[in-house]
Amino acid sequence: MQNRREFLKVAGLAAVGAGLAIGCKPRQEPPKPDDQPGGDTLKPAEPVIVGPCRMKLRYYPYELQLQHTFTVSSYSRNTTPDVQVEIEYQGYTGYGEASMPPYLGQSVDSVTAFLEKVNLEQFADPFCLEDILAYVDSLSPGDSAAKAAVDIALHDLVGKMLGAPWYRIWGYNPAKAPSTTFTIGIDTPEVVKEKTQECVDRFNILKVKVGTDSDKEMINTIRSVTDLPIAVDANQGWTDRFKALDMIYWLRDNGIVMVEQPLAVNRIDDLAWLRERSPLPVFGDESIQGLDDVRRAVGVFDGVNIKLMKCGGMRNAHKMVDLARGLGLKVMLGCMTETSCAVSAAAQLSPAVDFADLDGNLLISNDLFEGVGLHEGKLVLPGRPGIGVVKRASTEES
Amino acid sequence: MQNRREFLKVAGLAAVGAGLAIGCKPRQEPPKPDDQPGGDTLKPAEPVIVGPCRMKLRYYPYELQLQHTFTVSSYSRNTTPDVQVEIEYQGYTGYGEASMPPYLGQSVDSVTAFLEKVNLEQFADPFCLEDILAYVDSLSPGDSAAKAAVDIALHDLVGKMLGAPWYRIWGYNPAKAPSTTFTIGIDTPEVVKEKTQECVDRFNILKVKVGTDSDKEMINTIRSVTDLPIAVDANQGWTDRFKALDMIYWLRDNGIVMVEQPLAVNRIDDLAWLRERSPLPVFGDESIQGLDDVRRAVGVFDGVNIKLMKCGGMRNAHKMVDLARGLGLKVMLGCMTETSCAVSAAAQLSPAVDFADLDGNLLISNDLFEGVGLHEGKLVLPGRPGIGVVKRASTEES
Repeated sequence: MQNRREFLKVAGLAAVGAGLAIGCKPRQEPPKPDDQPGGDTLKPAEPVIVGPCRMKLRYYPYELQLQHTFTVSSYSRNTTPDVQVEIEYQGYTGYGEASMPPYLGQSVDSVTAFLEKVNLEQFADPFCLEDILAYVDSLSPGDSAAKAAVDIALHDLVGKMLGAPWYRIWGYNPAKAPSTTFTIGIDTPEVVKEKTQECVDRFNILKVKVGTDSDKEMINTIRSVTDLPIAVDANQGWTDRFKALDMIYWLRDNGIVMVEQPLAVNRIDDLAWLRERSPLPVFGDESIQGLDDVRRAVGVFDGVNIKLMKCGGMRNAHKMVDLARGLGLKVMLGCMTETSCAVSAAAQLSPAVDFADLDGNLLISNDLFEGVGLHEGKLVLPGRPGIGVVKRASTEES
Repeated sequence: MQNRREFLKVAGLAAVGAGLAIGCKPRQEPPKPDDQPGGDTLKPAEPVIVGPCRMKLRYYPYELQLQHTFTVSSYSRNTTPDVQVEIEYQGYTGYGEASMPPYLGQSVDSVTAFLEKVNLEQFADPFCLEDILAYVDSLSPGDSAAKAAVDIALHDLVGKMLGAPWYRIWGYNPAKAPSTTFTIGIDTPEVVKEKTQECVDRFNILKVKVGTDSDKEMINTIRSVTDLPIAVDANQGWTDRFKALDMIYWLRDNGIVMVEQPLAVNRIDDLAWLRERSPLPVFGDESIQGLDDVRRAVGVFDGVNIKLMKCGGMRNAHKMVDLARGLGLKVMLGCMTETSCAVSAAAQLSPAVDFADLDGNLLISNDLFEGVGLHEGKLVLPGRPGIGVVKRASTEES
């Protein structure tokens, strides 16, 4: 008796032989070699596979080294757990990534356990992203970072097969990629001043975590160095809505341009109250995970912060952008500490958003990829197809 | 002194010479010949243009001949005015179409006047669809059919440059293309029976216009021939909400599966009342023109009927599908009497919808194109790139 995998393999080959395929029509052009400019340094010598084949998924844990110790009220850390994913098909390789900062509740173990369940070999055509990603999503109720890793790798693969970066496929003008914010961590006034000074010539907008008793001191310290616009993220840290509103007025008077997640996720009425009165646009972050949260954001927030690791990848993120626009909401793109893989994937959407907070790759010292760039504080989208990344020679796997 | 066109030409060439371009980065790969299978019969002998070039828009009126006289309460007609559009760029030709049934309030004159205003030469890259279509939309407040023609031609062009049909670019599984409804026109019982009999083996679902005093007679006549599911379109024809609800119950008991636009557009409260009580899903058609109407449909309709000629083209239609899904609404795709050009463009979205009413090309006798097909009542999406059409040799222009 055949097991499931053998059945699918046999059925798949028979279907391809008959000019059909399971689920989705295979690409009819002959397979082309990986035409990614700069080359694919991971597997340069592999032959092009001719004829019917199936997607192959590989993954490996990759611990991200932070350039500076990351400290929030509850803990501090020097690394972020991460899993790199590669999907290979017809000589093309798509790269993806799952980054798991502790608060996300996912880990190398949970991500690899999820990836073990993913069987892409049942699909004849990587272009059937709607079906494939619905299947991936159905495998568990959570695991957003693991799902994002598969989604990103599939988009990279399909973009490479189309020979175009996703911002082009989506119809965006790369010249409209915005400036990215850069986060100044909470620290002693001396260190904050020093870090701010380093940012003044590189960035056009800063980001500051607020929600503690020293918010005004932190802003004043930065303001002693620069007048650059600042975005603040309260991370649910404020508790009194009246004090929050007072603080937002003070922040407005000090050149702050937007506020993220001022109150706790469950305080929907208070968030709506605050939004109605706030002189600055209020964005939801922890409140906004997937598509349904965008719908629920109407009347509660002015905008939504979309992150690939929260929403499960590029396809959902793109839908969330369109949904938010259709509902009259502003849009912000965020990230975790990530390599240039996931950051470049998110950056494909950046011409369509109001704020980009895509500094995750700048915070690590062992980036595996070259991808999205920075020019005078603005994101520079690479012209390479897919998500636009190439492996760095110096971090190539042995 | 330079006029505007000369200025743009000079500025454009200078920008390209400097490796830049107005608005959007030019494609860096060398131009390829039109690789559309089946060939482009309109201009087979034209040389491939090498080097910087600009999009060229052409158009010509093309009167659609209806196979049967089309009669509604207010008028009857044997033709539909139509304008065909072609956009040429780097040896590729994208096809588009504006179809103007009288109730749309647009004409060959209004469409050609609009197209005269469209200057695509200012854009270096057809891939910047978001920018280009925002510009096209900004040229006037209405003209949805003319805008759809430009949008469809641009999508056909870009899809051909990517070498993929739009259903693939959008990630849809073509095997999920639904059955299309086919409309049985209001006529004498004998003619209705005859037409229904002709449909029984070709279609899996029928469509009937209701909203007159003879609704039950019409349904009973069809039911004397077949038990096929039926969609009904009241075209705002019912006036009493209680009678409308009674009628919907009767329709449900007679195998009708959905109702379009039961009451007038301005009767929002009554439509919401009806939707809440209706045993059949109620779709908005005349109420749903563009993106904003999808948002307003929540609580008023169960679903929306999206038509390219109403919403301005494929890009808006795709956004409306995603917006409707994000808001928990059902989706239907409709069309006008159109050639296979606009119908095949709409069909690219069909794997994502609940109902397809894409029979417009089957109602005319002088279709210019081959495109979307029909197999056992289901839409068959062509594998050709772009919108998947080729010109018919027999209707080739002299």
